[in-house]
Parts: sequence; structure tokens; C-alpha cells
Amino acid sequence: MAGKFIVIEGLEGAGKTTAINAVAQILNQHNINDLQFTREPGGTPIAEALRNIIKNGLDNEPLTDKAELLMLYAARIQLIDNIIKPALKAGKWVIGDRHDLSTKAYQGGGRQLDTTFITTLKQQVLGDFKPDLTLYLDIDPEIGLMRAKARGKLDRIEQQSLPFFERTRQHYLELAKQDKTIITIDAAQSIGNVTKQIEQILTKWLTK
Amino acid sequence: MAGKFIVIEGLEGAGKTTAINAVAQILNQHNINDLQFTREPGGTPIAEALRNIIKNGLDNEPLTDKAELLMLYAARIQLIDNIIKPALKAGKWVIGDRHDLSTKAYQGGGRQLDTTFITTLKQQVLGDFKPDLTLYLDIDPEIGLMRAKARGKLDRIEQQSLPFFERTRQHYLELAKQDKTIITIDAAQSIGNVTKQIEQILTKWLTK
Repeated sequence: MAGKFIVIEGLEGAGKTTAINAVAQILNQHNINDLQFTREPGGTPIAEALRNIIKNGLDNEPLTDKAELLMLYAARIQLIDNIIKPALKAGKWVIGDRHDLSTKAYQGGGRQLDTTFITTLKQQVLGDFKPDLTLYLDIDPEIGLMRAKARGKLDRIEQQSLPFFERTRQHYLELAKQDKTIITIDAAQSIGNVTKQIEQILTKWLTK
Repeated sequence: MAGKFIVIEGLEGAGKTTAINAVAQILNQHNINDLQFTREPGGTPIAEALRNIIKNGLDNEPLTDKAELLMLYAARIQLIDNIIKPALKAGKWVIGDRHDLSTKAYQGGGRQLDTTFITTLKQQVLGDFKPDLTLYLDIDPEIGLMRAKARGKLDRIEQQSLPFFERTRQHYLELAKQDKTIITIDAAQSIGNVTKQIEQILTKWLTK
């Protein structure tokens, strides 16, 4: 039987890593043990090379928003074709640290690129492929960025302005409203409460 | 006064390098001395990093045709925004070893990707930007590949099958017919005759 693809989404400092660990543990408790973890952009040699350019730039060359967008989709189709689809076919469950929703939110919202073009790109490059379930950890960017800063040096994306992240959050919230497979979780709660909520959502979803 | 953008196009072994040198000399004879040379994909640190993946792959990971296409446009917009447009604005003339026509011919023809999608990508990413003049060196792929092989080891693209290059050539020829700024030159002639023809075309174009 084919596996399922569960994605964790959210702004910097929303608590994605903790949530990913919680999802894995809950799946284990339901005897789902063959897990594949992915992160985006990244997860294959070519996708990681693209991630490095997107996150850190190269030789101080200005990276255009459009090149960033195209590189994100190039990395994504490499990951889907070479890792995610083969894993799902082999019956593994895939837990993703970000996926297509990030691009819709960050590039459509944050960067304010043409959302119709992003939708066309998604459809032409990825086709109908999408996660079975997405947990979106919603956080006020001021709180999220404070947490991210406490972790250390910020990368090219994390260095964006507060309005950039506010626009990104707005797009996340609107996109979550339009898609039943995306569930919004209030990530301003304590870690314990967020984990408890993930457990309730996932248990209900697994047994439906 | 803004400079002009002249592109040399053609299959492997068509004689692009010789043609580029001829174009530069002819421009010099017309007192156009401030030249900027570009090659595609490539020409900026980020675009060269993408070129390296496209030409040589990475860690034997299969590169999907779609990721290749997106990386080509990512490299192109980096080159246009960071090198070509500033050079033209500064009054330099730019001589390009390949540009957008290559992608239309190789990815649309050779790889048989959806040409409508390629046109959409071009328009959304590059807008109306295009070369002032393109010289397409037309060669039978059997002859071109023989010449390319004589030069040494073939890269990922040069290793494609003969039908791939025949389809690419067909697309080149059809696209050249539809665009008055593209001039087709029979590259099966002697180097001397090709150079003479370039001289005639360019002199006529410069004095028109």
C-alpha cells in the first residue's frame, strides 16, 4: 500500500522541528514506522545545491525574485521525482519540512510575485501532486523571528523585513482556508499544547 | 546611446566560436569597440553554478527535463538583469553565445517539452527583452556532432541522441522563419564562406 505525504508548514520560529518530531512519534504509535523525512528546498544533491544558493546567495550576486522562484520549483520537482514519489510507492510515509505551500506564501505573499504565474508553474511542473495532509503552524512573525534570532545567524530569507513575513502569514492563512487538507494550528500556544493538538488532529485523520 | 545585443545560435559543432570572433572583428571595423561577451547558460556566479549542474549533473542524480528548463530560465534572468541590461545601458554591445532561442529549440524541440509553457515562462520571466539580431548557424547534426566529438569529451547535452538534435534543428529552422531578427546561415560551407556571409549580413544590418 502506498504511503502518505504529511507536510509541516509555517514561518521561521513557528516550531516546525518540534512538530515534525511529534508527527513521527504519533505515527510510530499507530505502527507506521517506515518514515522518510524531507526538507525543502533540498533533499537531493541538486536540490541541496539550489537550496544553498537560495539561502546563502553566491559571491554577493543579487538573486532576482524570479530566479529564486524557478530554482524553488526546480528543487521541488527533483525531490518529488527522485525521493518522495519512489518512497510513497514503496509504502513509506513521507514527513516534509515545507513543500509547495511555502512557495505560494513566501513568493506569492512575501515577494508579491504574480500568484497566477505561480499557480501555472505549480501545475505545469508538479501536475496534480500534493500532500495528503498539511499542518500549518500559525505564528505572529514578531514572535517567530524573535525565536529564530535566538537560534543564531539569520539566512537570506530570514533577514527579510517584518512586512514581508506579515504578507507571507496572510497568504498562509488565506490558502489554508481554501484547502481542506491544510489544518491551521495556533503556534503561539505552549509546546505542550501544540503537540497535544497535533496528536488530536493526526489521530482523528488516521482513523477517519 | 544604448548598445545592441547580437546572439550566435546553433547546434554543437556549428562553428559558434569562429562566428563570435568574426562578429567582434566586424564590429571593431565599424568602430564599435566596447564589447561584452556572454555565454548561456552562464555568465554570472549563480548562472555558472546552474550551468555546471545542467552540463555535468551532480552526484549522478537524474536531472528532470522540467528542472533543467527552470534552471535555464533562472540562469538567463540572472544574466540579463545583472550583466546584459547594465552593459547595454552603459553603451556596450553584447555578443551572446546562445540565448533564449536555444531553450526554445533544445527544450521545445529536443526534449519535446510543452512549447506553450516555454512561451509562458519566457514572457513571465524575461518579459519583452530579446536580442536585436540573432545569427543562426544551421548545420546537419551528423556533421556538427562529428566536429564536436573531435574537440573532446561530450557533456550531458552533447551526449543526446541524433533524433534529439534533428528535432532541435527543426525547431531552430521553424523559429527562424517566424522572426525577422533571426538570420539563418548555412554552416556547412567553408569557414571562409561563413565568415564572408556574416560580414555581408552584419554590414548591411549596421548601415540600415
